[in-house]
Amino acid sequence: MIQRLIIQGGTVVSTEAEIRADVIVEGERIAALTQAAQPTPEDTVIAAGGCYVLPGVIDAHTHIKLDTGIYRTADDWFTGTRAAAFGGVTTVIDFATQFPGQTFREAMDARRAEAESAAIDYALHVMVTDLPPGDEHKLGELVEMGAPSFKLYTTYRPNYYADDATILRILRASVEVGGLVMVHCENDDLVTAATQALVKRGDTGWRFHAQARPALAEQEAVARVLFLAEAANAPLYVVHCSTARSVELVRQARQRGQAAYCETCPQYLLLDERVYAGSNPEHFILQPPLRAEGEGAALWERVAGGAVDVISTDHCDYSLAQKRAKDDFTVTPGGLPGLETLLPLVYTYGCGAARGRLTMPALARMLSANPARIFGLYPQKGAILPGADADLVIYDPAAAGTVRASALHYIAQYNPYEGMPVRGAVRATISRGKVIFQAGEDDCTPGHGRYAPRRLNYNR
Amino acid sequence: MIQRLIIQGGTVVSTEAEIRADVIVEGERIAALTQAAQPTPEDTVIAAGGCYVLPGVIDAHTHIKLDTGIYRTADDWFTGTRAAAFGGVTTVIDFATQFPGQTFREAMDARRAEAESAAIDYALHVMVTDLPPGDEHKLGELVEMGAPSFKLYTTYRPNYYADDATILRILRASVEVGGLVMVHCENDDLVTAATQALVKRGDTGWRFHAQARPALAEQEAVARVLFLAEAANAPLYVVHCSTARSVELVRQARQRGQAAYCETCPQYLLLDERVYAGSNPEHFILQPPLRAEGEGAALWERVAGGAVDVISTDHCDYSLAQKRAKDDFTVTPGGLPGLETLLPLVYTYGCGAARGRLTMPALARMLSANPARIFGLYPQKGAILPGADADLVIYDPAAAGTVRASALHYIAQYNPYEGMPVRGAVRATISRGKVIFQAGEDDCTPGHGRYAPRRLNYNR
Amino acid sequence: MIQRLIIQGGTVVSTEAEIRADVIVEGERIAALTQAAQPTPEDTVIAAGGCYVLPGVIDAHTHIKLDTGIYRTADDWFTGTRAAAFGGVTTVIDFATQFPGQTFREAMDARRAEAESAAIDYALHVMVTDLPPGDEHKLGELVEMGAPSFKLYTTYRPNYYADDATILRILRASVEVGGLVMVHCENDDLVTAATQALVKRGDTGWRFHAQARPALAEQEAVARVLFLAEAANAPLYVVHCSTARSVELVRQARQRGQAAYCETCPQYLLLDERVYAGSNPEHFILQPPLRAEGEGAALWERVAGGAVDVISTDHCDYSLAQKRAKDDFTVTPGGLPGLETLLPLVYTYGCGAARGRLTMPALARMLSANPARIFGLYPQKGAILPGADADLVIYDPAAAGTVRASALHYIAQYNPYEGMPVRGAVRATISRGKVIFQAGEDDCTPGHGRYAPRRLNYNR
Amino acid sequence: MIQRLIIQGGTVVSTEAEIRADVIVEGERIAALTQAAQPTPEDTVIAAGGCYVLPGVIDAHTHIKLDTGIYRTADDWFTGTRAAAFGGVTTVIDFATQFPGQTFREAMDARRAEAESAAIDYALHVMVTDLPPGDEHKLGELVEMGAPSFKLYTTYRPNYYADDATILRILRASVEVGGLVMVHCENDDLVTAATQALVKRGDTGWRFHAQARPALAEQEAVARVLFLAEAANAPLYVVHCSTARSVELVRQARQRGQAAYCETCPQYLLLDERVYAGSNPEHFILQPPLRAEGEGAALWERVAGGAVDVISTDHCDYSLAQKRAKDDFTVTPGGLPGLETLLPLVYTYGCGAARGRLTMPALARMLSANPARIFGLYPQKGAILPGADADLVIYDPAAAGTVRASALHYIAQYNPYEGMPVRGAVRATISRGKVIFQAGEDDCTPGHGRYAPRRLNYNR
Repeated sequence: MIQRLIIQGGTVVSTEAEIRADVIVEGERIAALTQAAQPTPEDTVIAAGGCYVLPGVIDAHTHIKLDTGIYRTADDWFTGTRAAAFGGVTTVIDFATQFPGQTFREAMDARRAEAESAAIDYALHVMVTDLPPGDEHKLGELVEMGAPSFKLYTTYRPNYYADDATILRILRASVEVGGLVMVHCENDDLVTAATQALVKRGDTGWRFHAQARPALAEQEAVARVLFLAEAANAPLYVVHCSTARSVELVRQARQRGQAAYCETCPQYLLLDERVYAGSNPEHFILQPPLRAEGEGAALWERVAGGAVDVISTDHCDYSLAQKRAKDDFTVTPGGLPGLETLLPLVYTYGCGAARGRLTMPALARMLSANPARIFGLYPQKGAILPGADADLVIYDPAAAGTVRASALHYIAQYNPYEGMPVRGAVRATISRGKVIFQAGEDDCTPGHGRYAPRRLNYNR
Repeated sequence: MIQRLIIQGGTVVSTEAEIRADVIVEGERIAALTQAAQPTPEDTVIAAGGCYVLPGVIDAHTHIKLDTGIYRTADDWFTGTRAAAFGGVTTVIDFATQFPGQTFREAMDARRAEAESAAIDYALHVMVTDLPPGDEHKLGELVEMGAPSFKLYTTYRPNYYADDATILRILRASVEVGGLVMVHCENDDLVTAATQALVKRGDTGWRFHAQARPALAEQEAVARVLFLAEAANAPLYVVHCSTARSVELVRQARQRGQAAYCETCPQYLLLDERVYAGSNPEHFILQPPLRAEGEGAALWERVAGGAVDVISTDHCDYSLAQKRAKDDFTVTPGGLPGLETLLPLVYTYGCGAARGRLTMPALARMLSANPARIFGLYPQKGAILPGADADLVIYDPAAAGTVRASALHYIAQYNPYEGMPVRGAVRATISRGKVIFQAGEDDCTPGHGRYAPRRLNYNR
Repeated sequence: MIQRLIIQGGTVVSTEAEIRADVIVEGERIAALTQAAQPTPEDTVIAAGGCYVLPGVIDAHTHIKLDTGIYRTADDWFTGTRAAAFGGVTTVIDFATQFPGQTFREAMDARRAEAESAAIDYALHVMVTDLPPGDEHKLGELVEMGAPSFKLYTTYRPNYYADDATILRILRASVEVGGLVMVHCENDDLVTAATQALVKRGDTGWRFHAQARPALAEQEAVARVLFLAEAANAPLYVVHCSTARSVELVRQARQRGQAAYCETCPQYLLLDERVYAGSNPEHFILQPPLRAEGEGAALWERVAGGAVDVISTDHCDYSLAQKRAKDDFTVTPGGLPGLETLLPLVYTYGCGAARGRLTMPALARMLSANPARIFGLYPQKGAILPGADADLVIYDPAAAGTVRASALHYIAQYNPYEGMPVRGAVRATISRGKVIFQAGEDDCTPGHGRYAPRRLNYNR
Repeated sequence: MIQRLIIQGGTVVSTEAEIRADVIVEGERIAALTQAAQPTPEDTVIAAGGCYVLPGVIDAHTHIKLDTGIYRTADDWFTGTRAAAFGGVTTVIDFATQFPGQTFREAMDARRAEAESAAIDYALHVMVTDLPPGDEHKLGELVEMGAPSFKLYTTYRPNYYADDATILRILRASVEVGGLVMVHCENDDLVTAATQALVKRGDTGWRFHAQARPALAEQEAVARVLFLAEAANAPLYVVHCSTARSVELVRQARQRGQAAYCETCPQYLLLDERVYAGSNPEHFILQPPLRAEGEGAALWERVAGGAVDVISTDHCDYSLAQKRAKDDFTVTPGGLPGLETLLPLVYTYGCGAARGRLTMPALARMLSANPARIFGLYPQKGAILPGADADLVIYDPAAAGTVRASALHYIAQYNPYEGMPVRGAVRATISRGKVIFQAGEDDCTPGHGRYAPRRLNYNR
C-alpha cells in the first residue's frame, strides 16, 4: 500500500471558497480532498489546524542565477529555489535567455542544465532576442518544448530591446503558434533621454535612480504594446506594472475585448521612491524603479478590484557587494530578492493587517491559480484538486514576525522589506508530495525540482 | 460505519476545470473528491465512466404552483420538483409572493407550507408588493429568514408594479439590510401603449403577442433600473434578459463598477417570434415575449463572452387548456415550462451541437455556481467540494434524443421545444446524497426537499 | 432715400470673433457691416465706442403671462417684453399651451392674440398636452405654423405629464414632421414620493422646497429621455438643466452621435439651496429647485467647456403677493423673473468678474446664435450679418451696478439676485431697426413685436 | 477717394451661414458686407450672381520649392503660388526647414528669402530637426517670428525623425511658449521593417509602395503621439490622416478633453491603392501612401461628421522626370501636386456631386476658417468680415469640367486626379484686395504675397 501524506484539519483555500477539508497526498499527486481523512499508522500526518492550506505559490516572474551579459546574480538554482521553499513557493517560472546566435533549443537546453539543481519545480519563459523575419515559426519549437511564453523588452537597447516591428511580428507569430507574448514595458527613448539628462548633470548617484525611468515611460509603452497586440489579435501579458495607470490601461483593453493580462510585484505595492533618499538607496535599484508615494495605494486598489491578474516578484538575488560597488545607478545591477517574502507580504498587507483588501481565494488566484492558468500549468498546478501535483503550502495566520534579511535564505545580505512587520508564517511547504519545509527546517535537495512543460489554453 | 455513495469514473466539472475524480458522498454531504475511491461492499457505487459529474443545477428563477391572483399554474410542488429531478435540477429558487396586506413572515410561511411536498431543495426570493415608506427595515426580516433577494416589477400595473420611487427606496434599503434587488424590466408605459394600440385594432390574437411588449420597453427599463441602482450604490440582478442589448447595458454598468448581474433563459436563446406565426402560438405566450430572429444568436454571443451570469428558466407549468382558453394574448397566462429541459438544452446548444460556445466549466458556472454565489447558497450548493451538499447530476454526453412533451413530466401537455434534437442525457440526479433519479426512473418523495436559507456574500 | 441707423465705433461680437466695425441698419434689417460708415445728416447714429455690439439676446425659455390653470403670472405681454427690452432681449421664445380639447391652431391663435401687445419679437414653442395616438401628424400643423418645437413634461401629473409611451411617440413623430422635442425632466415618481414624505411629516414650508424635488429625479429623467430619443433617432432639447450631471448626460449622448442639446439658467449658475434657509425662501420657489452648494460651480465648468448650448431664464413674473400667499411650497407658484437680468448676469459672472470662463463670442453663442440655430430663427436672428433682422444690443462693459428689484421693470417687487453686483450695462436695445431702449429710457410700444415663425435646419 | 472693389450679387459663405450680400473691398481689406452696395463709376465691380463668395482657401500644408536634402521639387514660389491662385487659394502655410546646425532665425530667414517671389500670402510652420535638450526655450523665438507651429516626424530616420523623448520634450516646450506641435505620424520601426522586407524580396517597384507603409504604422503613431500630448497637456495637430481610424483616435482624444486637431487631404478621400496596380503608379508615390479601397468613403464619413478639422493638400510639385527616374519607390520622390485642385475637388465630391456630405459653411470651415483659427491667422484671414484681409474666391457652382494636367499650372506634367469630373469653377481669386485671377486669366506678380505672421489663440 502506498504511503500517504495527510494534511489534516486545515482550511483549504480554493480560488473561490475556503472549505474545511483534509488533503490526502499519494506520491506526487493530490489523491483526495476529504472532510475527515482516516489516517493509518503508515500515513504521515501534518496537522494544519488553525492554518490555511493553499496551493503552492507560483512565482511567475523570477531571475534565478541570472546572467544579463553584464551582471550575474549571486545565487544558483539550488540556493534560489531553497529560499523559495521557505516562502511557500513551489514553482517558479523563470527565463531562458536566447543569447544572440543561439537557437531556442540551445537556450532552453543550457538553462535547463543550470536548473538541474532546483529544489522545486520550474518552468521557463524565453527571452527572445534574435528572431529574424522569416524565422517566426521557430517559436513553435518553444511551444513544443513547453515554453509557450515569449518575453520581449521595449527597453535595454541594444541587447534586449525589441523595436515595434519586432514586437508586432512576434505578437502575430504567437497567435500562429499558440503562444503568449509578455513585455517589459518602458519606452526606451524616454528612459534614455531621462538618463542622459542625469548623466549630463552628473547626477548618477543611486538617489537619482527613479528620475531616470519616469512612470510615463512605462505607461506609454503599455499603451503602445496593447495597441499592437490588438492589431495582431494576440493575447498579451504586461509584466511588473509599477503604476495604477498601467493596470488601468490593461483593464480598459480587456473591457474592449482584448485578452490582456498584467502583473505587479510586492515592491511596487509596499515601497516607494522615498527610499532613494534614505540610507540604503542601493538596495532599491531595479527597473522599473519604485514610484511616487501614493502609487502603492492606488495599485492596491486595482489589486483589490480584480484588475491585476498576478502578483510575482521579479526576483533577483544580487549580493550586497554587487549592489554597493559604485554609487551610480547606471552601473548598479537592478533587481531585488523577493521569492521568500512573496506570500507573507501579500498575506500581511492584502489580507492580514489590512483585511478587506483581499479574500483568501483572491490571494490564491493571484499567487497560484492565475499564473497557472495564464501560463498553461493549470490544473496540474495552481489548484487543490485530486490529480493535481501535490504542491501545497500551510500558512499559519496567527504567527507574527518581522522581515529580517539575516533570517532569510538568499545570498543577498540585505532585504528591501527589512524591518517590516509580517502577519502569519509558512508552516510547511510541499512540492510534488515531498515536504521540503516544515517547522523551520527545510529538506530541500538539489534536483528534486523538475522542469514543468506548459501548454496554453484560454478557453474556460 | 456510514454507508457511502460513490460516483466513480466520471469527469468532475468544477467552475474552472474538468478533472478525472471520484466523488464520495456520506449522508447528505460530499465527503471527498478522490482520484481512486476504494468502494467497500457496503457502498453504493454509480458508474459515471464517460459521463460528466456536474454540481446539481440550480434554477434561480421558477414559478412552481404559481398563483398570480388571476391564474394558477397546474402543477404543485411535488410534480414541479419531480420534473426538475428528471432534468438534473437539484435546487430551485422560487418566489414567495407578498400579497397585499401580508407581512413578509406570513408570505414566507404560506409559501413554505405549500412547498412541503418538494422533492428537491428550494429557496425563495420574495416578490415585494406592499412596503410603505418607513417599513423598509422589514426587509431585514427577510434577510433573517434566509430570503435576501427581493423581486420588483416595472410592469404589471397595478398589482405587481413598483414605481421608480419604490424601486429606488427598496434598492437603498437593500444596501442597509444586505439584500439584493432583482427586477423584471419592462417599461409599463410602453407595454401598455403597445397593448392598447393592438386592443384598439382588435389585434389581440396570440399571433400579435410580441408586438404588445417591444424590446425597447425591456431595454429602457434595464437602463433605468441600472441608473437607480447606481444612485443607490446597490447590487442589482436583472431577470430574464431577452435581448442582447439588455445584457450589454448590464455589462457596461459592471465595467463602470456597479455590482450588476443578469440572467437569460433558454427560450430567448433558442426560440424567436416566428413561432407566433406558427400553428401553436399559444404555447409561446410569456413576458417578455420571444424576440426577433437573430436576437438569440446575439444573446448566445453574450453568453459565450461571459456577460451573462445565470441561465434560468422562468418556469411556469400552465396546462394546455389554460393556454388555449381564448385566442387572446391579453387573457392567456404567460409562462413556459422549462425545468426539465434546462440542462439538456444548454448543453446541446452551448456545448454539444455547437461546441466552442461554452466550456463545461462555463456551463457549470451559469447553471450552478453563479446562482449559488449571487444568491447566497455557495459553497453549500453550486460546488463539488468536501462538505458541500451532495447535489449532483451525472450527464452522459454520448446520448442523443429529441424533446417530446409526452416524455417530460410536467402537467403541461405541450412543450415549447417540441421536436428539437438534444445531445446528451441526465443519467442520475442526486439531492443531498439521495439518488432521486437514475436509469430513467425517479425515486422522488414529497418532502425530501428542504428549504435552503440563504445569506449573501459578494466578497470573493 | 431711406433713413439709416448707424451703430458706430463699437466692437461687434460674432459667434467666432470680435471685430471693430460699424453696423448700418436700413429699415428693419442690417444693411451692412462696415469698417467706417459715412453717416449723412439724415442718419441716426448711436455711438458705441467702448461698447460691445451684440446680436440681440434670444431668451429661448420664457413664460410671459403664464396661465398654468392654477396660477397666472402677474405680467402681460407688454410689461413682460418691455422688461426684456431693458435687458437687451430682442426675442423671446415663449410657449403656447395646448389646453385639453384644444386644437393646435386654437392654442396658437389664442396665444398669438395675447401676444399682440408684445414690444419685441416672439416665437412660440408648444406645450403638447393632448395628442392621442393616431394624431401625431397634427404636429406637422405646428411646423407649418412656424412652431416646430414641442414641449413635454415628465412631471406635473396629471395635467402636463407625458408618460414614456407618449414621449416616445412624439419623439418619433417629431422626426417625421421635422420638429424638435424639448423636455422638462424630473422623474414624477421620485418627485411625488419625496413631496409626499414631506407632506406626511408636515414639512411643506418653503424652506423644504429643495427636498421635494431631488437632483436625482432630474438626472434620471434626463437619462431616460435621452434613451428614448436615441431609440427614436430624434433630436432632443433638455430644458433648464440644474445639475452638472444632467449636462454630462447630454454631452455623452452627443459624443455617441445623438443630436442632443441642453440649456441651463442663471438661477442654477448663481444661486443655491442655501437661500431656502434664508429670510426670503418664497422668492426661490421654482421647479427644478435650486441645488446644493457647489453645483453652480460645476455647471459653470460645463458652460465654459462648451457643453451647454443655451442659457435661458425660464422667466415667470409672479407678484410678491402670489409668492407669499402661504408658507407652503406645494401651493406657491414656481418660477422666477429673469428676462431683464439675463445678459448682465451672464456677462458679469461669465466674462466680467470672472474673465476666462467665457469669451464674448461664447456668450453670443449661448444667448443668441445657438437658440436661433437650434430653434430655427437663424440667420434671420442670432447673427449680425447683412440681411438679418436688426436686433442688436449695445453693452457697455465699463459700467457697474447692483441688482435691485426696485430698478427693474417686472411686476414682481422682488428679485432673486437682489444685491448682487453687476458689471456692465445695456446702453441700447434695437428691435428690427427700432431703438426700443437707449440712455435709460425705453421707447417700447405695444404691438411692435411680431410673431417670428421658425423652421428647423440642423444641416450646417 | 479710395477706389473700391465690389463683389456684387453673390452668396457669401460664412462659417455658419450662406447670405446674400455684397462685399466691399477697400485697399487690402474688406471694408463692408452689405445688402446692396451702391457702386460709383470709380469702383471695380465683379458680378458674382449665381456664385459663392468664399473666404480665400488657406492650404495649411504645402511644400513649395521643397528641398528635402535629397530631392527638390521642380516649382518655385512664384509658379507654386500662381497655380494656387488659379485654384482659389489665397494663403499657403508652408514650412521652413531647420537644417542641422541652423538657428531658427536662419531657417526662417532663408525660407522667407526664397518666398519673396510669392504671388499670394504665406505663413510658415517650422520643421524642427535640431533642438538639443536645454534649448527648448528657443521655440519662443519662433513664436515671436510668427511661426508658432512646429512640425515633427515620427519617421524618416535619421534626418527628420524625432524620437519619443524629443516629441514629448517639444510638446512640453510648446505649452511653455504658446506653440502647437504638428506631427507626421508613421511608426518608423513598422515602416522600416515593411520596407526592408520588400527590399529583401526585390519588390521595390512603384506598385509595391503601399505595402511599405502600412496603415497600422500611421495609426499606432497617432495613438502614441496623442498619448504623449495628453501627458504634456499640449495641443496637437495630426497632419494628413489617411485612414478613418486615425481620425477616430483624434476624435476620441478630443472627447476625453484633449486639444487635438487633425487634417486629411483630397488624395486620401478620392484615391486608393488600386492606382498602384495601374499604368502610372509613379504618379502616386507619397507618404503616407494611398490606402485600401473603402478607406476614402470612411474618411468622407468623418469629414461629414465634423471630426476632421482641416483639408489640406501636402502639395509637392515634382516633375514627371523626377517621378519616373527609376521604378523603385525607395528612390522616387514622394508627394503630389494639389494646390490648384483643392477647392474644386472638395466642392465637387463634398458638396456638388454628392450633396449632403458637406454644407458650404462646412466647406468654408475646413478650407479656410479652421486652418486660420488653429494656426493663428483668424480673423485676419479665414473670415469674410470688415477689417479682414480681402482674400476671397468666387466660385461658380454651375460650371463643369474635368481635371486635366495640361490645363493646370504646375511644373508637373501629370496630375493624380487626371480625368476626374469636376463641378463648379473658380471665377475669381482676390488676394488682399488684388484680383489675381479672373475670367481664366491670372494677374499674378512675384512679390505680391507677403509673409503672414501668426499668433495662436484657442480661447473662443
